[in-house]
Amino acid sequence: MNTPNETTEVPLPIAPSAPPPVLADEEIDIDLFAKIKLRTATIESVEAVPKSKKLYRIQVDLGEHGKRQIVSGIAQHYTPEELIGRQIVIVANLKPAKLMGVESQGMLLAASTDSDGALALLMPDKAIPAGSRVR
Amino acid sequence: MNTPNETTEVPLPIAPSAPPPVLADEEIDIDLFAKIKLRTATIESVEAVPKSKKLYRIQVDLGEHGKRQIVSGIAQHYTPEELIGRQIVIVANLKPAKLMGVESQGMLLAASTDSDGALALLMPDKAIPAGSRVR
Repeated sequence: MNTPNETTEVPLPIAPSAPPPVLADEEIDIDLFAKIKLRTATIESVEAVPKSKKLYRIQVDLGEHGKRQIVSGIAQHYTPEELIGRQIVIVANLKPAKLMGVESQGMLLAASTDSDGALALLMPDKAIPAGSRVR
Repeated sequence: MNTPNETTEVPLPIAPSAPPPVLADEEIDIDLFAKIKLRTATIESVEAVPKSKKLYRIQVDLGEHGKRQIVSGIAQHYTPEELIGRQIVIVANLKPAKLMGVESQGMLLAASTDSDGALALLMPDKAIPAGSRVR
């Protein structure tokens, strides 16, 4: 039953004309996402960082998860009055970093476009306790 | 100069009464956060997953980043009519997973409380193109 045709047959490459689609973003596991602690926070105060046109020093309340100081480059998009009292979303377990010499203990989340520089803060669609986990 | 007092001195433990603070959340680097691609998405359709009280199969549009099917356990919190047309935020580069046999190509973000099971979807505070990066 071992014919010459069978032994010399070369397997065709699988789907040679259909390369795998190029993914713009590298895929991640849910375990990696779970390491990021996103939480709701209520803005208590906002002040401009001296000598910076973009940065605000923002004090936020995370309920039972304490209070934080966030430095964020949203000064050209919102006045302090538009921000105070609002609920936002922050990355609550980011290593503290200094921006223009001011410590930032987290990062607030905003959607932005590369094309026209539009920016929109994220918010919960209804009131929920400050410090609530986002996932 | 080598007195008996100096040679027998036992060093005190450092700050024995002040243990390091216990952090509720392990700290992460900005590089780890940057691996997570969060994007705005517009909900196009919503249908209940058969035999599930909690799951919706949701079709979303990410503009130039394509369309996705998201399976999410928010059916007890929102009606389909409340969701269609809305902008939400999704993890856009999560490995696809199956829930109740239905493929989910991402995860939508919502704030929730452990205490009373309240849930609030995240949204941008103003309209911004679907597919905009959130960070």
